[in-house]
Amino acid sequence: MIYEVVVTTVNDQDEVHIAPMGIRFEDGFTVIAPFKPSQTLTNIDSTGTAIVNITDDVRLFAGCVTGKSDWPVYPATMVNGYVLDAAISHNELRVVKKADDEQRPRIYMIEVFNAATRPFRGFNRAQAAVVEAAVLVSRLHLLSAEKIDSEMDYLSIAIEKTAGAKELEAWQWLVDAIENFRIQSD
Amino acid sequence: MIYEVVVTTVNDQDEVHIAPMGIRFEDGFTVIAPFKPSQTLTNIDSTGTAIVNITDDVRLFAGCVTGKSDWPVYPATMVNGYVLDAAISHNELRVVKKADDEQRPRIYMIEVFNAATRPFRGFNRAQAAVVEAAVLVSRLHLLSAEKIDSEMDYLSIAIEKTAGAKELEAWQWLVDAIENFRIQSD
Repeated sequence: MIYEVVVTTVNDQDEVHIAPMGIRFEDGFTVIAPFKPSQTLTNIDSTGTAIVNITDDVRLFAGCVTGKSDWPVYPATMVNGYVLDAAISHNELRVVKKADDEQRPRIYMIEVFNAATRPFRGFNRAQAAVVEAAVLVSRLHLLSAEKIDSEMDYLSIAIEKTAGAKELEAWQWLVDAIENFRIQSD
Repeated sequence: MIYEVVVTTVNDQDEVHIAPMGIRFEDGFTVIAPFKPSQTLTNIDSTGTAIVNITDDVRLFAGCVTGKSDWPVYPATMVNGYVLDAAISHNELRVVKKADDEQRPRIYMIEVFNAATRPFRGFNRAQAAVVEAAVLVSRLHLLSAEKIDSEMDYLSIAIEKTAGAKELEAWQWLVDAIENFRIQSD
């Protein structure tokens, strides 16, 4: 079972890196599998820490695949790193072991601190649609224009019916990214 | 903005009724708009209370549209009614005012108690897919077989990639319900 969260890490210069990612829970460990190479992997290898931010602000997911990386953060409590202001809860993690892999090493981490700052209000279909559309946009170079259009059409129904302001903003970034990609590919 | 939750209410005989529903928040009120007629509406009119259950167990959403209504509950703290064991948090509500409507009266309620019992772990694409498929199954009589097949095909990708045991069970109920509907319509 995979949960879509936002992982924050820092490099040697204490610069934060923000990456939406699917994570798993296994035998008490939080398992993060960043691609090789990636800034998240470099940072975890260097610091031995990462922070899982659980957020219902889907602008993070849409923003990170459309080049928006400047999100407010505050210092973590128990590890080197930063927490997203947008997190409704977060887990601060330390590396315990690593299973190497050519593409995606699996890093097994334990939680050393967690905090919940805002309640989860329930499923919102528009938020789910933005998460799906962000996945699509991250794969624009792999998918046909027809497939993208038909999936965006389908997802737009939930946007129209159930979105709030943040979801509409995130959706627009993704729509714009698809348009820009096509202009550049022409 | 609409959140998909599970509303529990009781009738005069203290029998619980469980209904997945989209709710809104407006000016400090929780707004529930049950269809007329519906057991939820009858119960709220009779007791003046309802409970919003926030759950990530999507079997509730799939189960309630496929005839499974027997879910474990425990008594609420401040109002007449019951809370789902499956809730990760819940809000106990009292009616303040009602805006009548031919189809869906809007009931404005205030929270008199809330509790969070389990953490929200983040978005799971399979959970979102089950919620979407449950919406489809509730509209089988309105949609073409082609539309249903193509949307279920699309949703099945997230199921295959990110589901856990509960999501797979819920998905199977929905797949079975579509098959049964077609056998009966033949």
